[in-house]
Amino acid sequence: MYCEGYDELDLRPLLVVFCAERPRNPGEGTMAPSIEPVCRSLLSPHAPLEPLSQDELARIHAASLDVLQDVGMDILHPEARDILAKAGAWVDDERVRFPRELVEEAVARAPSRFRLWHHDESAYLEFGGNAINLGLIASAPYCSDLAGGRRPGTIADLAKLTRLADNLPAVRMICGYPVEPQDLPAPTRHLDAVHAFLTLSTKPCHAYSLGGARIRDALEMIKIVRGVDEAALAARPSLISIINTSSPLRLDHPMADGMMVMAQAGQPVGITPFTLSGAMSPVTLAGALVQQNAEALAAVALMQIVAPGAPVLYGGFTSNVDMRSGSPAFGTPEYARAALAGGQLARYEGLPYRSSNVNASNTVDAQAAYESMTALWAAIMGHANLIMHGAGWLEGGLTSSYEKVVLDAEMYDRIEATLTPLPEEAWNFDPADLAAMPRPEEALTEDSLQPLQEAYASWRPEPAVQRAAREVQRLVADHRPPPLDPARLAALDGFVARRKHEGGAEAA
Amino acid sequence: MYCEGYDELDLRPLLVVFCAERPRNPGEGTMAPSIEPVCRSLLSPHAPLEPLSQDELARIHAASLDVLQDVGMDILHPEARDILAKAGAWVDDERVRFPRELVEEAVARAPSRFRLWHHDESAYLEFGGNAINLGLIASAPYCSDLAGGRRPGTIADLAKLTRLADNLPAVRMICGYPVEPQDLPAPTRHLDAVHAFLTLSTKPCHAYSLGGARIRDALEMIKIVRGVDEAALAARPSLISIINTSSPLRLDHPMADGMMVMAQAGQPVGITPFTLSGAMSPVTLAGALVQQNAEALAAVALMQIVAPGAPVLYGGFTSNVDMRSGSPAFGTPEYARAALAGGQLARYEGLPYRSSNVNASNTVDAQAAYESMTALWAAIMGHANLIMHGAGWLEGGLTSSYEKVVLDAEMYDRIEATLTPLPEEAWNFDPADLAAMPRPEEALTEDSLQPLQEAYASWRPEPAVQRAAREVQRLVADHRPPPLDPARLAALDGFVARRKHEGGAEAA
Repeated sequence: MYCEGYDELDLRPLLVVFCAERPRNPGEGTMAPSIEPVCRSLLSPHAPLEPLSQDELARIHAASLDVLQDVGMDILHPEARDILAKAGAWVDDERVRFPRELVEEAVARAPSRFRLWHHDESAYLEFGGNAINLGLIASAPYCSDLAGGRRPGTIADLAKLTRLADNLPAVRMICGYPVEPQDLPAPTRHLDAVHAFLTLSTKPCHAYSLGGARIRDALEMIKIVRGVDEAALAARPSLISIINTSSPLRLDHPMADGMMVMAQAGQPVGITPFTLSGAMSPVTLAGALVQQNAEALAAVALMQIVAPGAPVLYGGFTSNVDMRSGSPAFGTPEYARAALAGGQLARYEGLPYRSSNVNASNTVDAQAAYESMTALWAAIMGHANLIMHGAGWLEGGLTSSYEKVVLDAEMYDRIEATLTPLPEEAWNFDPADLAAMPRPEEALTEDSLQPLQEAYASWRPEPAVQRAAREVQRLVADHRPPPLDPARLAALDGFVARRKHEGGAEAA
Repeated sequence: MYCEGYDELDLRPLLVVFCAERPRNPGEGTMAPSIEPVCRSLLSPHAPLEPLSQDELARIHAASLDVLQDVGMDILHPEARDILAKAGAWVDDERVRFPRELVEEAVARAPSRFRLWHHDESAYLEFGGNAINLGLIASAPYCSDLAGGRRPGTIADLAKLTRLADNLPAVRMICGYPVEPQDLPAPTRHLDAVHAFLTLSTKPCHAYSLGGARIRDALEMIKIVRGVDEAALAARPSLISIINTSSPLRLDHPMADGMMVMAQAGQPVGITPFTLSGAMSPVTLAGALVQQNAEALAAVALMQIVAPGAPVLYGGFTSNVDMRSGSPAFGTPEYARAALAGGQLARYEGLPYRSSNVNASNTVDAQAAYESMTALWAAIMGHANLIMHGAGWLEGGLTSSYEKVVLDAEMYDRIEATLTPLPEEAWNFDPADLAAMPRPEEALTEDSLQPLQEAYASWRPEPAVQRAAREVQRLVADHRPPPLDPARLAALDGFVARRKHEGGAEAA
């Protein structure tokens, strides 16, 4: 049940899983289809788990503002530095220091919730409060399946993983390249990838902020497919981009550039510092969270100065490294605590929250599953509005596993079912029904046991990964791309051909 | 953070994991050793997850009392029926119907918390409130390991599993035979098993309520090892017994008999109806929970009439069956919801709660891990004071897996670490420390990357079950039995020899 006092944290009505029946926000866009769009987010019926006290939260917040004011952050984008200087920041070469009030006032402009739309506007995802959304794995250089083993990603694998995700209700959105299409040239790779996302699924998708040009291409392609103009796209965004700071305390040029283009187009970005305790962050959790908060707030502040009110997610990716090998550890207690605390920090700053479903196993085994379950539960109990890498992540993110996509979706489906309240009628029960139950010796007779014994005799151990491999085959074979107007498809193809002819992102 | 209003549910002081520093209850026993005993329970810092509303809880409670009053329960123990009739129950042949007030008044006599002691009284476990304790798997007919595959249990396996559990801090107690010693004759098997528990570990242990004679033997053996009399054993109990009702609506003779002997000796029992929706229980969760509550309350009432104030756990084992095969399903959403709701029902009835760590996988794979994680999280977030089958359960309980013992302990250790609050000092952080961090290009140099690349090159996929198999070997080889006074050991051996000579339980 809900805690008393949690309502102040902007909680949605309880015990409702799908929010289709909630009234739409007024003026939300002009592209309303004839069918009322449905919300595809899971709404948690439970208050979030919060490991930090209010005092600890306030101390982390204050320390992160001290860091931005006294130490500052390298912003490797000259125009962004000029904008920040005009807003009152102190700029010294690439280092920018932020007055405390500047950060607090800018961050306060960010909305505490926003929506992301399916490209056909039939459905949307809610980000904020207790709404939770699972995304597909992103950015793995390799992919693997039982039959083919591990190999570098290709555009064919990217398309196949997109089909798989489109056919899995648990996966709510595409969060980046599910595997890096290494067979395509870098300057035009984004055109083929976004083309695949838009023609194989209506689920919201992602473009990488590797400079503004790639983002502008993705925005154009989405406008073509949706048949909308800039204003309508801004009113109902359907593209997201994840911005990673280069920890410690640096925001690179391409990321800043992409972020500003996204913000001006009204499309949400997730700001995620990659703060690994013992590597690019202090070894203590407190130190890593202070750094995470400082880096996230600096990027959010820049974004909100450029485009006040632009939708944004506060991202947490804090974990620890294995101090013997230097490998990132995931799904550990340190990770889970940081993920829960990250949710508290995001709510403290008034921002929606992004976490992940990660593990450090290098095969689809018990460890992969229990580390993923740890990360999933921490994300869900921490009210992560976006769970990045929600399905398919293996080997610390190096590999996108087809079988793990299916198993992660299975895990998430089960958690979602557990958190979906039963209808009121489900609790009716007539005590007389129990009087009619068969006695133990009536229920367990030779005849009733025989089929069970036969079922048991034919039951052979089969690792879940083998079952999942069959399910991958079935789901990909069954997949049918969503209908797309032929004129729009032709326009999309034409845009991609033209931009390839121009040289892609390098010509921007 | 804790919910407001939860304190009324008898919550212990928060943010304390080990409760060693709490004052001992006055008059708790006379065997206090010179070293102050420590509490080995995990205390959850979070309020329990509660899927049922107060109204739904009240309806299940009321319906279960209606069942006991109108339908009744078969109590296959003549003396127990006489006791119940004298207390005001209506007895018709073997069927006993319970007036509502009789049940409520009897159940109200049960304590809401109790302690279970290590046999050397160096430590105790707390049962009640937010205290959580993991027990070893119990009652599997088979055991398995990677090297030997699956085979019928033996006393050698029982002893080896006991050593393994004794060497794993996550496992707090022995909850039954970790595997059934099928190589020993049934009438004396309990003597060898309890002998193994008492000589290989000081952790609290279990005896089966297969009639009162086996329980009396176990009580005698514990008194010998601990060097205490009946009163001291009652003041600091160290034996537990799990009572299963024969669902639907039956309490068998041996279970009732053992339960009454345990209660009179002041040793706790856990009352667990085995209510599988679609098999021995209604297909709806409401129906199964009403039945679970009715059967549990009937047994608790009998016990509290026999020995008012005797310690007892309310057990929940409600799950559903796979309607195609008839196999019990575990770690499913239905299971998790029932486990969380069971905790609410136990607290509603004012009783400590017992749940389990279960799964339906037939091999130590991703499914085994994620179903176990689902069950573990539901148990922990539902404040299950005892998590039965906490380590080693496989194949729906048919098999005790050595490797799974290690992996379950690993999972529990990680959850426990996640829930263990960090000390206040851990949140101190000096922002100036971040100024001293190396820049990204300083941290990631050729030199710093080389050991990571070497580590990665030597990294081969190895399923967790193989790593666990090595850990089993190490933990069993490293195990040293606890010190035991030679005179007490001789007395113990003598007792076992005498009882075997007498024919064991059949001579009782």
